[in-house]
Amino acid sequence: MFFISVINTFFKDDLGNINFLGKLAISLLIFISVYIITKVINKIIDRTILNRKTITTNEATNRIRTMIETIKKTIKYLLFFFAIIIVLDLFGVNTATLITTLGIGGFALTFGAQSLVKDMITGFFILVENQYSVGDYVQIGSKEGIVEELGIRITKIRDFSGELHIIPNGSITEVTNKTRGGMRALIKVSVAYEEDLDHVIDVLNRIAEEFKQNDKIIDGPNVLGVTQLGSSGIEVTIVAKTLPMEQWAIERNLRKRIKEEFEKEDIEIPYQKIVIIGGEKS
Amino acid sequence: MFFISVINTFFKDDLGNINFLGKLAISLLIFISVYIITKVINKIIDRTILNRKTITTNEATNRIRTMIETIKKTIKYLLFFFAIIIVLDLFGVNTATLITTLGIGGFALTFGAQSLVKDMITGFFILVENQYSVGDYVQIGSKEGIVEELGIRITKIRDFSGELHIIPNGSITEVTNKTRGGMRALIKVSVAYEEDLDHVIDVLNRIAEEFKQNDKIIDGPNVLGVTQLGSSGIEVTIVAKTLPMEQWAIERNLRKRIKEEFEKEDIEIPYQKIVIIGGEKS
Amino acid sequence: MFFISVINTFFKDDLGNINFLGKLAISLLIFISVYIITKVINKIIDRTILNRKTITTNEATNRIRTMIETIKKTIKYLLFFFAIIIVLDLFGVNTATLITTLGIGGFALTFGAQSLVKDMITGFFILVENQYSVGDYVQIGSKEGIVEELGIRITKIRDFSGELHIIPNGSITEVTNKTRGGMRALIKVSVAYEEDLDHVIDVLNRIAEEFKQNDKIIDGPNVLGVTQLGSSGIEVTIVAKTLPMEQWAIERNLRKRIKEEFEKEDIEIPYQKIVIIGGEKS
Amino acid sequence: MFFISVINTFFKDDLGNINFLGKLAISLLIFISVYIITKVINKIIDRTILNRKTITTNEATNRIRTMIETIKKTIKYLLFFFAIIIVLDLFGVNTATLITTLGIGGFALTFGAQSLVKDMITGFFILVENQYSVGDYVQIGSKEGIVEELGIRITKIRDFSGELHIIPNGSITEVTNKTRGGMRALIKVSVAYEEDLDHVIDVLNRIAEEFKQNDKIIDGPNVLGVTQLGSSGIEVTIVAKTLPMEQWAIERNLRKRIKEEFEKEDIEIPYQKIVIIGGEKS
Amino acid sequence: MFFISVINTFFKDDLGNINFLGKLAISLLIFISVYIITKVINKIIDRTILNRKTITTNEATNRIRTMIETIKKTIKYLLFFFAIIIVLDLFGVNTATLITTLGIGGFALTFGAQSLVKDMITGFFILVENQYSVGDYVQIGSKEGIVEELGIRITKIRDFSGELHIIPNGSITEVTNKTRGGMRALIKVSVAYEEDLDHVIDVLNRIAEEFKQNDKIIDGPNVLGVTQLGSSGIEVTIVAKTLPMEQWAIERNLRKRIKEEFEKEDIEIPYQKIVIIGGEKS
Amino acid sequence: MFFISVINTFFKDDLGNINFLGKLAISLLIFISVYIITKVINKIIDRTILNRKTITTNEATNRIRTMIETIKKTIKYLLFFFAIIIVLDLFGVNTATLITTLGIGGFALTFGAQSLVKDMITGFFILVENQYSVGDYVQIGSKEGIVEELGIRITKIRDFSGELHIIPNGSITEVTNKTRGGMRALIKVSVAYEEDLDHVIDVLNRIAEEFKQNDKIIDGPNVLGVTQLGSSGIEVTIVAKTLPMEQWAIERNLRKRIKEEFEKEDIEIPYQKIVIIGGEKS
Amino acid sequence: MFFISVINTFFKDDLGNINFLGKLAISLLIFISVYIITKVINKIIDRTILNRKTITTNEATNRIRTMIETIKKTIKYLLFFFAIIIVLDLFGVNTATLITTLGIGGFALTFGAQSLVKDMITGFFILVENQYSVGDYVQIGSKEGIVEELGIRITKIRDFSGELHIIPNGSITEVTNKTRGGMRALIKVSVAYEEDLDHVIDVLNRIAEEFKQNDKIIDGPNVLGVTQLGSSGIEVTIVAKTLPMEQWAIERNLRKRIKEEFEKEDIEIPYQKIVIIGGEKS
Repeated sequence: MFFISVINTFFKDDLGNINFLGKLAISLLIFISVYIITKVINKIIDRTILNRKTITTNEATNRIRTMIETIKKTIKYLLFFFAIIIVLDLFGVNTATLITTLGIGGFALTFGAQSLVKDMITGFFILVENQYSVGDYVQIGSKEGIVEELGIRITKIRDFSGELHIIPNGSITEVTNKTRGGMRALIKVSVAYEEDLDHVIDVLNRIAEEFKQNDKIIDGPNVLGVTQLGSSGIEVTIVAKTLPMEQWAIERNLRKRIKEEFEKEDIEIPYQKIVIIGGEKS
Repeated sequence: MFFISVINTFFKDDLGNINFLGKLAISLLIFISVYIITKVINKIIDRTILNRKTITTNEATNRIRTMIETIKKTIKYLLFFFAIIIVLDLFGVNTATLITTLGIGGFALTFGAQSLVKDMITGFFILVENQYSVGDYVQIGSKEGIVEELGIRITKIRDFSGELHIIPNGSITEVTNKTRGGMRALIKVSVAYEEDLDHVIDVLNRIAEEFKQNDKIIDGPNVLGVTQLGSSGIEVTIVAKTLPMEQWAIERNLRKRIKEEFEKEDIEIPYQKIVIIGGEKS
Repeated sequence: MFFISVINTFFKDDLGNINFLGKLAISLLIFISVYIITKVINKIIDRTILNRKTITTNEATNRIRTMIETIKKTIKYLLFFFAIIIVLDLFGVNTATLITTLGIGGFALTFGAQSLVKDMITGFFILVENQYSVGDYVQIGSKEGIVEELGIRITKIRDFSGELHIIPNGSITEVTNKTRGGMRALIKVSVAYEEDLDHVIDVLNRIAEEFKQNDKIIDGPNVLGVTQLGSSGIEVTIVAKTLPMEQWAIERNLRKRIKEEFEKEDIEIPYQKIVIIGGEKS
Repeated sequence: MFFISVINTFFKDDLGNINFLGKLAISLLIFISVYIITKVINKIIDRTILNRKTITTNEATNRIRTMIETIKKTIKYLLFFFAIIIVLDLFGVNTATLITTLGIGGFALTFGAQSLVKDMITGFFILVENQYSVGDYVQIGSKEGIVEELGIRITKIRDFSGELHIIPNGSITEVTNKTRGGMRALIKVSVAYEEDLDHVIDVLNRIAEEFKQNDKIIDGPNVLGVTQLGSSGIEVTIVAKTLPMEQWAIERNLRKRIKEEFEKEDIEIPYQKIVIIGGEKS
Repeated sequence: MFFISVINTFFKDDLGNINFLGKLAISLLIFISVYIITKVINKIIDRTILNRKTITTNEATNRIRTMIETIKKTIKYLLFFFAIIIVLDLFGVNTATLITTLGIGGFALTFGAQSLVKDMITGFFILVENQYSVGDYVQIGSKEGIVEELGIRITKIRDFSGELHIIPNGSITEVTNKTRGGMRALIKVSVAYEEDLDHVIDVLNRIAEEFKQNDKIIDGPNVLGVTQLGSSGIEVTIVAKTLPMEQWAIERNLRKRIKEEFEKEDIEIPYQKIVIIGGEKS
Repeated sequence: MFFISVINTFFKDDLGNINFLGKLAISLLIFISVYIITKVINKIIDRTILNRKTITTNEATNRIRTMIETIKKTIKYLLFFFAIIIVLDLFGVNTATLITTLGIGGFALTFGAQSLVKDMITGFFILVENQYSVGDYVQIGSKEGIVEELGIRITKIRDFSGELHIIPNGSITEVTNKTRGGMRALIKVSVAYEEDLDHVIDVLNRIAEEFKQNDKIIDGPNVLGVTQLGSSGIEVTIVAKTLPMEQWAIERNLRKRIKEEFEKEDIEIPYQKIVIIGGEKS
Repeated sequence: MFFISVINTFFKDDLGNINFLGKLAISLLIFISVYIITKVINKIIDRTILNRKTITTNEATNRIRTMIETIKKTIKYLLFFFAIIIVLDLFGVNTATLITTLGIGGFALTFGAQSLVKDMITGFFILVENQYSVGDYVQIGSKEGIVEELGIRITKIRDFSGELHIIPNGSITEVTNKTRGGMRALIKVSVAYEEDLDHVIDVLNRIAEEFKQNDKIIDGPNVLGVTQLGSSGIEVTIVAKTLPMEQWAIERNLRKRIKEEFEKEDIEIPYQKIVIIGGEKS
């Protein structure tokens, strides 16, 4: 009760309204509260985001830390801005105008900068979910290449042809990462209908056996069998599981060996074949 | 009536307005109410969502439980936020400013983070409706593979070629699940117009009979009949229903058998045929 | 007039304002009104929706009934929520804050969950308009198959190849139902330009006559006539109307018969024909 | 002036404010006004929409009448809803809450049910503008067939293949109606470069003359002339204008006659022609 | 000053507030003002739109006049609606409710009927800018034909094949008008590499000279020269500028003449040519 | 201080409120201020837009001037409209209603006429940035032709085939202007693998030397070298830089010369070549 | 306390309200504050944007400086506008009207000019992130060429064919920059199945060795191996890393050398090969 009487004596005027001194006191209180609230929010943010286990790479941690700093600052500025508005209002300045205009302005900006916000949110999730990191071979939309830079707003990937693709994160939806786990090398060989199928498969199995030693192959080449009865031959398929990025070299070597072995064994890889029938008329 | 007189004595000042003590009392009441309401809402959420029978897998149950916890916390924080606003207002702080700015800010955020919200809502329904679970072979848009991770925001599926596709749930509309029930193995064979059709169908029926023993086949291969009078032969179709993921092996084996049997029976699988007519002129 | 004096005595204080007792009385009145209004609305909903004649299947009726219950509950909760707000306001609590935040929150949610609402509205109309029901063979977008489940949010259709397509109702626009009424079996046969067209049509008519007995055919096969003067022959078309889902079998049988009969009658189904002209030069 | 004094005496209390009786009187006045306004609006609607001359079919008239009834009822309910709000406000109930929530709710609903509203508006215009009616052969997007049902929300068209396409009106933009006025039968015939063009055109003209008798043909077949100097012959085109839906039969008959006549006159319809030049090397 | 004392005496009550009589007077003033404003606005609209020189056809003038009348009426009703609201407000009725609900309703309607508004705005500009008129041969999107009706909401064009395309104006963006100015007839002729190019061009020039007399040709056919060194001959191109809609007939006649003249001059229009080289092996 | 006492005497009534005369004076002041502000804004607009150096053509200057006049008028009307609202408010008329309705109306209109506004803004930038002007040969989307009219809302371009494309400016994004700087003439010639490549390049260089004299060629034709090892020959490419719109004629002449020279030098431009290998079987 | 008494004496009237003089004093204070705030904001902007290290080119620095000036001015004008509104309000002018209308107007404009804002934001990021600069060879969407101008709203790129593409920055998403780092020259050569593969690879390696001297090649040509077992030959691939823009010339030279060397070594680059099988019948 004493507290109240103190308030009444010092901070209220004769009509019971809060006087200038009282308003100053309240202002002070508001600014202190805002300061404390800011500290509390910072703590919460740190705990929620930084302790996630998925963030393993140092690079990602650094980027996210930068991002969090930006978010913290934005919140701090916003809260002090509110404090100022409330204090101004306390001293009788008309703040409605300010608020309305700022609100509409903010809306307009949001509307215009929508894709920017989207870029950053998507970028944040790519980092936190570790969808890909620098050095991975990825496909994003119709572009593929090695990730050179993974920014908050854009991702840069470099094509095998040397071209540098710069992609805003917001336009990334489906990502295909080709360096997470073993990749498949796949060879399709056509042989003529006239060949003995069992002989062909024997020869292919022999080649497969050779390649099983190769330590870039995780799961040795297997002859799958007849995958198509095509218009100019029978298609036989061989697959192997290799270390990432090694599949193309393995495929090239396998193709060369098959060509050589087929030549030796006299198995024909068929050109297009046409049966000609002599017609009458004229 | 006594209750009212108590209120009048302690909580109102001489002008009949609620005094500082009264305001404190009301504040207390508000916070207690909010606490109770929070508890009630939690109960309702638990009952509505967790008792659904479609949620069978343990993994899904865990994920949904995590999600519900997040929703509950959000509601709790929001309600206490309202309580604070009402109390501040009670003590005469201008809260309109705060509300307006927060409102517009919230709108702006919603606008920007729209796809994030969509990701999570779709992810929630994929889980609850059990559209697919880890290990299923699915097709989503143009990507297909085995589901490796089914998160609240993203789904990861791994291609047969080893590529890892990371798809935000919000961009998933039509899902094709290929491991729910038996799959179809289908072989189309072309034979020349010169062949005796009944003989061809007899041979195919004999092969089908052989395969009926195979326990990976649910519904034995059936010869459907003539499915096309094509430009270089008659197309005959054979179908079988197999265990999921076994259809490709069955198809490969069927193709090999047909090739061998046709060779034995002297049935021609035709190359492209052209009738040549000698023209005059020049 | 007596009524008014009663009100004045009990429910108004000395200044003519409504006193605490009066406010309690009004609150009671509001809650009773809301209760009555709820009942009336329920009646109206039942009458408008459930009496429609298009809802024939039991399954649809059950689903719609579930849906209506949800709608009724939502309305009831909303009305009581209004009542609480009005009563709180009556007792002097600042409710503007609550309303604004809830409004913006609701808007944000609507924005995010837009596709969910769309799914359910479309699902509701598919049921009420009986666009398809479980067991129908339908095509939705690029997927076709037999409807396995027709839910409020999703439709499941199973392909002939055994794949299960899960389609959110909201992404369904055009539906093609292939089991409402007879389907067409259609065969196009090419014959060489050298054949006697009248003879060909006679033979086809004879085959058509045979098939007219088949009780899976609603409207006997008819020879339409010459539908194309193509680059390697004259295309003649035969059509029949069959029971739904039987068109493919009929087509296969017709094709087999035509092939056999043409062989007997020595009518050539042409391979691609090329006129070769010997050029000079070199 | 007397009128005013009456008002002052009966409907105002001592402070010059409107008393309870006055409020009742005003309420009555409001309800009566709303009733009259409703009647006037109904009249206006009837006059504006129903008197249009384009609405010729009975079916359309019925559907539109049903629709108008719905609109009228909606307006009536809305107006009485306003009346109730104003009266409640008059008696001092806080209605702002109600309005705000209803407003946001309405907005949310509009947002979700947007496509429903669009379906109905488009359906309305299809009826009023008589774009097509039941029995017409139309093409809508990629689907074509005979209109089976023209509803306010959906249109059902049946394909020649027996498939029933169900299309929401809102997704209809361009409509192609193929039963409004005569249709064109068009035949393109290729003849070899070696033929005498004048002779070919004479023969075609003779056939055209024959068909001019046919009463399903509105504008007799005309030989247009050389429409392409193609890679394997000269293309000559014949067109006729026929009764709707008869164009295909006319085309089939014309094709048969041309084939027969060309055979008689020894005009060659060319197969693909290739000039072979013997090369050297190897 | 006298004017003010009159106002004070008659239109104000003892407390200086405007009395009932004063309110009536103000109401009258408002309605008169609205009437005058309406007239002024009508004048402005007439002057701005109707005096444009681009509106030449009578038909367009009529349609625009109808449209303007609708706009004028809409403005008149809106202004009187405002007047009524202001007057109601003057007499103390709470109009905020009405305004809010109408506002939201209007928004909802706009949202739903968006495409309707767009149809009419686009239709208006097509008329005013005279993009096409009835009888023109136009291409809109993928449809082309002769304009049969140019409405405010839809455009009807009739295809050469007799099909009637009904296109909502709002879905029209790019319009191609083919009857504004002369059209091009273009013939591409292939001749063998063995021909003497100068001789070919001489012959074509001679044919061009013949056609220069034709009064349907604005700018005589010109031989452009060698436009492609193709895989089976040299392509030479001839162009002419003709009256609109006559280009096809001119092209057909030119093609016929070229064929006849080339035959006379023994210039070969080549079939596809292939050099055959005898390979070894097998 | 004197100024204040004058104000108090004349413009305030006994209660210190502003009297009728004061209100009239304020109104006058407002209108004068608005007039001055209008003048100032006009000046600013003129200076900012008209002094840009990019606006070179007279035609563009005229169009922009017209546009600026429209903008100025709009601003003037808006400002006077504000003045009237403020004055009405000053005299106690309720203007909130008016504002709200106008606001919503304006929003609705914006929403509907969105594409109109977009057309004009884009049109403005095309003019100011001088993207193209009348007479330029441009490609916009899939249409190309010579610009006939560059309006504020639409652009008209005329195709070489005489067709007039009318494109709303708002649907223009990427513009390709083909008359800004020299254009490239490019000829690709195929020669058989049997030819001596150095000889071919010598001959082409000789032809290029001839054409270097031509004053329509900016940068003489250069033989680039072997651009493809194709399936039926080696592709050699020649490029030249020509005056705009002259590239096609240059290309045609180059092609004719190459053909003649190759004939003289006995270099073969190859037809499609096929190696035929005699197979066994049957 | 003295300060307060001064305020009370000079700036308040008898009723304790702020008098005219006080209002003038407050106005002055507001304008001074706004001036100071402007200066502070300018400092912050300069520090945040201009000190970034990525902005290396002078040209970009200039453009960004211009842009920042515009932003600064906009902020200054906005702040003074707020100041004026607050002062007007202080003196009792109704400013709500002004604010509302300006707000809606601003919204409408934003809506219409959305793409303009997007153009400028994207343009800003292209500059700051140095995605490309004048002279770079880039691909944007389907257009590629050398950047001629990099404006805030549009980018101009010139095609090799001389065409000038004008692209609004807002429609740029993915950018491919082809002048950042070495580019790949890639040659695919087909050889017949009959060739000795080891010999072919030897010859290619010899050619590669020659080219390693070329200082436009960063990483010498390497023979990758067999990249396809095609239908008419074995495809062998050679790659090299070159200076940007030099890859095409390197490719042309490599192709010429390979052709010459193969001729010398008698390695056949195969035409299309077909195996012909003589059929019976007729």
